Amino acid sequence: MAETQWDVIVVGGGPAGYTAAIRLCQRGLRTLLIERGELGGVCLNRGCIPSKALIHCAHLWAQLKRAEQFGIHIGEAQFDWRRMRAWADRTVTTLRRGLQTLLRHHGVEVLRGEAQPEEPTVIRCVTADGGERQFSARAVLWATGSSPIMLPHAEGACVFTEEEALFWDALPDRLVIIGGGASGVELAWLFNALGVTVTLVEMLPHLLPIIDEEVAKALQVALERQGVTVRTGTKVVGIEKSPTGATVVSEEGSRWEADAVVCAVGRRPNSAPLQRLGVAIDNGGAVMVNEWQQTHLPTVFAVGDVVHGGWTAHGGMAEGERAAEAIASWLAEGRLPPMPSAFVLPFACFCEPQVLRVGLTEREAQEQGYAVKVSRFSWRACGAAVAMDETEGFVKVVADEVTGRVLGVHLLGAGVANLSGEAVAIVAQGLTAAQAAALLRQHPTLSEGIGEALWALLGLPLHSTHRATGRRA
Amino acid sequence: MAETQWDVIVVGGGPAGYTAAIRLCQRGLRTLLIERGELGGVCLNRGCIPSKALIHCAHLWAQLKRAEQFGIHIGEAQFDWRRMRAWADRTVTTLRRGLQTLLRHHGVEVLRGEAQPEEPTVIRCVTADGGERQFSARAVLWATGSSPIMLPHAEGACVFTEEEALFWDALPDRLVIIGGGASGVELAWLFNALGVTVTLVEMLPHLLPIIDEEVAKALQVALERQGVTVRTGTKVVGIEKSPTGATVVSEEGSRWEADAVVCAVGRRPNSAPLQRLGVAIDNGGAVMVNEWQQTHLPTVFAVGDVVHGGWTAHGGMAEGERAAEAIASWLAEGRLPPMPSAFVLPFACFCEPQVLRVGLTEREAQEQGYAVKVSRFSWRACGAAVAMDETEGFVKVVADEVTGRVLGVHLLGAGVANLSGEAVAIVAQGLTAAQAAALLRQHPTLSEGIGEALWALLGLPLHSTHRATGRRA
Repeated sequence: MAETQWDVIVVGGGPAGYTAAIRLCQRGLRTLLIERGELGGVCLNRGCIPSKALIHCAHLWAQLKRAEQFGIHIGEAQFDWRRMRAWADRTVTTLRRGLQTLLRHHGVEVLRGEAQPEEPTVIRCVTADGGERQFSARAVLWATGSSPIMLPHAEGACVFTEEEALFWDALPDRLVIIGGGASGVELAWLFNALGVTVTLVEMLPHLLPIIDEEVAKALQVALERQGVTVRTGTKVVGIEKSPTGATVVSEEGSRWEADAVVCAVGRRPNSAPLQRLGVAIDNGGAVMVNEWQQTHLPTVFAVGDVVHGGWTAHGGMAEGERAAEAIASWLAEGRLPPMPSAFVLPFACFCEPQVLRVGLTEREAQEQGYAVKVSRFSWRACGAAVAMDETEGFVKVVADEVTGRVLGVHLLGAGVANLSGEAVAIVAQGLTAAQAAALLRQHPTLSEGIGEALWALLGLPLHSTHRATGRRA
Repeated sequence: MAETQWDVIVVGGGPAGYTAAIRLCQRGLRTLLIERGELGGVCLNRGCIPSKALIHCAHLWAQLKRAEQFGIHIGEAQFDWRRMRAWADRTVTTLRRGLQTLLRHHGVEVLRGEAQPEEPTVIRCVTADGGERQFSARAVLWATGSSPIMLPHAEGACVFTEEEALFWDALPDRLVIIGGGASGVELAWLFNALGVTVTLVEMLPHLLPIIDEEVAKALQVALERQGVTVRTGTKVVGIEKSPTGATVVSEEGSRWEADAVVCAVGRRPNSAPLQRLGVAIDNGGAVMVNEWQQTHLPTVFAVGDVVHGGWTAHGGMAEGERAAEAIASWLAEGRLPPMPSAFVLPFACFCEPQVLRVGLTEREAQEQGYAVKVSRFSWRACGAAVAMDETEGFVKVVADEVTGRVLGVHLLGAGVANLSGEAVAIVAQGLTAAQAAALLRQHPTLSEGIGEALWALLGLPLHSTHRATGRRA
């Protein structure tokens, strides 16, 4: 006895969910979006956006410290963490208000409440005011996201999630961050730049395990030079209570005293409602879907963090678009569209120097059996980077020696995340190194660095003496 | 009676010339590079590079002024123009030293001196020590660049070229810049940011005449808001001497008093040596070449500013690469390679907000008979831009309604010049808006703005309510 019949109900108003809802409305489907918290999900409210706003503030602070070399003398300066926080709040509020306007404009009906599935296409919703409503739809899309994993710790120890750390009232003196993924590295950079003594502990052999090892090693050197203590290959076995906050204990017996500890060890899919529905879930709790984001129940779809451990907003948005297309096709014709092409999903970390990974790492390319050819270009030879004194890092290109195709583009450097569109265009379009090198780039910009690495790959380095190294897999 | 026989002599060691020289050596040709001044040409010594270094300093200064909103309190700060100049000098020196190393590494023989053609392939060179030498080669490439045009002015009036303004010992209080091209606009932004009272006068109806009009108009608004007085459609008819420096007089009778005047009205090809050789020269003094940079004398080639009024280093470098290929083919086989594909040449201006133009403007697309479709995306809806409070400007995409192909990408915004590689990849590869929109971009970055404008063009705006406007030509 559903109250209202919708074409589609989307559960979860983060990037994956709201993107799907907008696309569904654009395809003429009446769409209800149910969100239990704030629109925009983790990304907008407790992740990418507030962290980027804070990183911008800290970046400016870091720039000030070396202003003398650029002819600027600063007599006295201080920063106020709470006012940086206020800037982050204002950024979030501005964008959230924009999102509300957007959803209204596109005709998405938004309901605040907690959704539970009664049947595959029947949703019960406990609304914000405590009422209970029931809705049915022709299809349901789950975009319930993920929650940060908290490591076990002694009661009373000062331990925070990666999200909570963005909302502290005051900065700790000594901080231990457990987990060297994107969140952990960004927080380490942020707090170190603001004068906190930071220890970053990662269980795996290098930071940002999904990026190219060579880039990860150079990043570690950069962070250490800036003052971050980095411990890779180090497993945390205990978090004890201590007089000042907490003590982190590693497997090999190291003990780090801290005023605060941040767990940035990953996130768990919010898949409980779908488990109740009997949808197939993998060992990590992620909802299993086909290439069109469809679960084994044909009218139930899922997107974003609830289906995998990618934890990227842009990945979620792309899946939201894909699911909307699939649902529209399913509802109109009872079948899915033809096989979609694979995503080339960029990955960035917004510490300084920034990290960008697009396509295959050198190791992945070798493991997939390619005859791998690799080249590099250092920012030290890039005019734009030298003029800003931002010469740390490099561009690395991974190509297939047989076809010449560019398989991966990897960057470490100031502001390189903005080069994601260029790198994705090269890899996703299957361009050869020769085709990609022939594209002109504005001088003097960072974009030239990709061109230089490509020329080096072709044995025709221009602003470097580097030549490609080829290794047969 | 040539002293030495070379495969190729390159005259001029700017970006076009040194690129060609490196490429020629990479093709196994013995190459002599003759340069009368400093290696690196105008770009490295008196143009792009020192101006970018100074703009970086001024940008940091401008950022400081709004640091409060980012939680940073600055008690007292001042800048020192001479120390900013020192940073620019250091940048130039670093890169020039790198270039010398590079040329040596690649086997380019460098000679300091003034070259004159005796015959098409015989060069007489007055060397730095006053000696005279003569060389012959199988082909000669001219890359002698251009020189700034100085308007006629009263004797004793304080008038400077766009190059000289970068080397002032002290800043003027009041400055008039004549010419609203890239150099004029960059200098206007730079000096205004440093507190100089700047009037920018342009004869044509809008600034940066080669960019999209809509972008140019928005740029003018931005510069005026920052305090620059902009006078477009205004012809200067006189520069008089005045007690403080100079008075600039416009056709309609305006008079601007200034301590200094900068002429940024364009550049003149340094084609005198080639005129002596009888090579065909156009009315503007530019050497005429075919699509392979070959003059009407088959063993005489020319690249860069001496052949056109593009005045971009990256354009010159691309021509240098092309000429090297052509010369290698000509010398080996007595003929040119097959017709090359046209360049998609990006154009940027490094004021703030920055300008980037790639492909056709809306007007050009209409004039070429396309059924033009246009869309826009404002940075106000871009998370990365909002987090930095850099929301001025927009992305504009111009497409062909019939084929869906993207014809032009135009941007006004903070740091958009770094997006040149992405925009060129889209236009040069002939991607449709749908293909280009489907490329994933890292969140939150400025690169997303291009994606958003593309989705709007397809009638599927995501983070905006804007839809494309189509107009049949």
